[in-house]
Amino acid sequence: MNPAIETILNHRSVRNFKNDPIPESNINEIIRAAQSASTSSFLQAYSIIGVTSQEKKDRLAALAGGQTYVSENGYFFVFCADLSRHLTAASVHEQDISASVESTEGFMVAVIDAALAAQNAAIAAESMGLGICYIGGLRNNLEAVSSLLQTPDNVLPLFGMAVGWPDSYQEQKPRLPQTVIFHENEYNEIKHAQLRAYDQTIFNYYRSRANTKKEITWTSQVSSALAKSKRLYLNKFVPQKGFMK
Amino acid sequence: MNPAIETILNHRSVRNFKNDPIPESNINEIIRAAQSASTSSFLQAYSIIGVTSQEKKDRLAALAGGQTYVSENGYFFVFCADLSRHLTAASVHEQDISASVESTEGFMVAVIDAALAAQNAAIAAESMGLGICYIGGLRNNLEAVSSLLQTPDNVLPLFGMAVGWPDSYQEQKPRLPQTVIFHENEYNEIKHAQLRAYDQTIFNYYRSRANTKKEITWTSQVSSALAKSKRLYLNKFVPQKGFMK
Repeated sequence: MNPAIETILNHRSVRNFKNDPIPESNINEIIRAAQSASTSSFLQAYSIIGVTSQEKKDRLAALAGGQTYVSENGYFFVFCADLSRHLTAASVHEQDISASVESTEGFMVAVIDAALAAQNAAIAAESMGLGICYIGGLRNNLEAVSSLLQTPDNVLPLFGMAVGWPDSYQEQKPRLPQTVIFHENEYNEIKHAQLRAYDQTIFNYYRSRANTKKEITWTSQVSSALAKSKRLYLNKFVPQKGFMK
Repeated sequence: MNPAIETILNHRSVRNFKNDPIPESNINEIIRAAQSASTSSFLQAYSIIGVTSQEKKDRLAALAGGQTYVSENGYFFVFCADLSRHLTAASVHEQDISASVESTEGFMVAVIDAALAAQNAAIAAESMGLGICYIGGLRNNLEAVSSLLQTPDNVLPLFGMAVGWPDSYQEQKPRLPQTVIFHENEYNEIKHAQLRAYDQTIFNYYRSRANTKKEITWTSQVSSALAKSKRLYLNKFVPQKGFMK
């Protein structure tokens, strides 16, 4: 196994960071890594906001649900879907690109571009010995996040990423079996027996892990989480920001 | 610079593959790497389809726009957003998760999960000396792709990834300057001078590269591409497949 794959397979989210600063050269290398990712039709349809203001980090932590690791970390990134600069580019050439910018395709391209860049950043950071945690909680209130970070129309913050020197590690959570995630040539619908077996794996994992033990299965966890139907305001907010109008 | 970052920074899409097979152990390691990525609320809302049937690869190549590297490669993956197994999980617990599954948030989670997994797969493959190319062209005709791969409702193929031993490498394309992509604490709208400078960089790159020279700037390239407003059928097709209804 080579070092890159070792880094990838060793991933677990880190939610406890030491108070040590991250050298600027590391941050620059992480951003360079993000920019090296593939991008659809060379659009580079994303932006990265580095939040260094402690006041803004505290505010983001409150907005995201009060997690300490959003405010207490070595560095905090926000990854955004961004088709704003393409509108500027098109205005130079007097071309109308609004149908593309407002389409589902345009939104997918921007979200995928941002996510590919983010995952490169994650691997780069982890390869330096840093820990990371994605923060989807920013989507609890994107209106306030957008206003805090002053993102204009056609730019949508998607998620944050807390980075820092790990103070403690969680155990790795067992993923769905490869036979569930992976299909050869055609999609196979999941069988109840597969879900039951995985439920047992996850039940055992949560019951035996060192910290924050609980008794829960995967199916009960995900169905309870999704039954709450979080963030439905995004159905309207995303079009308001200029995507999928 | 550590080996993982070296792999990441060395990325360029590969579109010419040798006819050599990829050992199954490598493919398994690539899938394991994909599954190690972060996933929103542990949903693991994606599936990976490995296309090994040459007939299906040829058909996908035709659907994607006729690129030879979609049919001629060592391996071909299709990454899908997938909330289908969560509906099965919820049915076990008699919970109604349809509002979540049909929401913009649900779609974003599934697309981001799939993209993070895909980028882990890309880095893992490249760290083995393999080359990769993302194939957004599958989105030219997702109805035919879905039917070929027999994906049910609530599963949406997003993009392909051709993998293989590189037969030739392209030069790396210069990315937007870090000052354009990266913002500190608040978003800065792009200045025309920044776009003009980057246009010059890209013009020089295309004019001087070894293969397929052309004379084009970044702003003219992206505004022409987006003025065509590709794949508008997705505005309706994505809801038909159960997402963002």
